[in-house]
Amino acid sequence: MDYRFKVWLEQDGQPVLGDGLLNLLTLVRRHGSIRGAAGEMKMSYRQAWGNIKKAENRLGIKLLIKQIGGESGGGAHLTPEAEQLIRKYEDFRCEAGEAVKKSFLKYFRQ
Amino acid sequence: MDYRFKVWLEQDGQPVLGDGLLNLLTLVRRHGSIRGAAGEMKMSYRQAWGNIKKAENRLGIKLLIKQIGGESGGGAHLTPEAEQLIRKYEDFRCEAGEAVKKSFLKYFRQ
Repeated sequence: MDYRFKVWLEQDGQPVLGDGLLNLLTLVRRHGSIRGAAGEMKMSYRQAWGNIKKAENRLGIKLLIKQIGGESGGGAHLTPEAEQLIRKYEDFRCEAGEAVKKSFLKYFRQ
Repeated sequence: MDYRFKVWLEQDGQPVLGDGLLNLLTLVRRHGSIRGAAGEMKMSYRQAWGNIKKAENRLGIKLLIKQIGGESGGGAHLTPEAEQLIRKYEDFRCEAGEAVKKSFLKYFRQ
C-alpha cells in the first residue's frame, strides 16, 4: 500500500498555485524566458503565458516581468513577489508532505 | 489565500481508495445496497459496482458482500476488511489534513 498527496493554493475558491504552475515558474526562472519554459513543459507559449496571467489576475500580483522583445523573443524573469510566493509554497508543500508521510506510516506500515 | 488538499491510497501505482470511493462505500453502509448508494451519488449501479470491483481487484480483498437477490435488488454490506480499511483511511486523512492546515497557517496566515 502506498499513498499520493496533492496540495495547492486557492484564492476566492480558484486555484492559483499548484505543482503545474510551480514547475512552469521554476522553468521560466531557469530559462529566462516563457518560451523556453513552455517548450520544456511541452506546452505552447500561449498556454503557458495564459496560465501565468490567470494566476496573476486571481492573486492580484505580477509574477513575471517581460523584458524588451516581448512575445517575439524577449526574456522574462520572476518578480520578487513571485519568488516569495514560490518559496512559501515550496516550504508549505514540503512540510505538509513530511507530515502526511508520517501519518501514512503510522496507519499503514505498522 | 486558502488551500486545498487531497490524499488517496494506491496499490502498485494504481489508486485504490480516495474520497470518491470512500463516499460510495459509506453510502453502501448506510443504504445497505449498491443501488441506493449509486443513486445518491448520481451514478449508475454499473459504474458504482465497477469502481468497487476495481478497488477489490487491486487491493486483493473483498470490500462488499452482496446478499441474496444480487444485482436485481438484493442488498450489500461492507466486509470487516473494508470497515478496517475505511477506518484507517479516515484516521490517516484526518490527521494528515490537520497537519497540512497547521503548515498552511504557519506559512500563509502569519
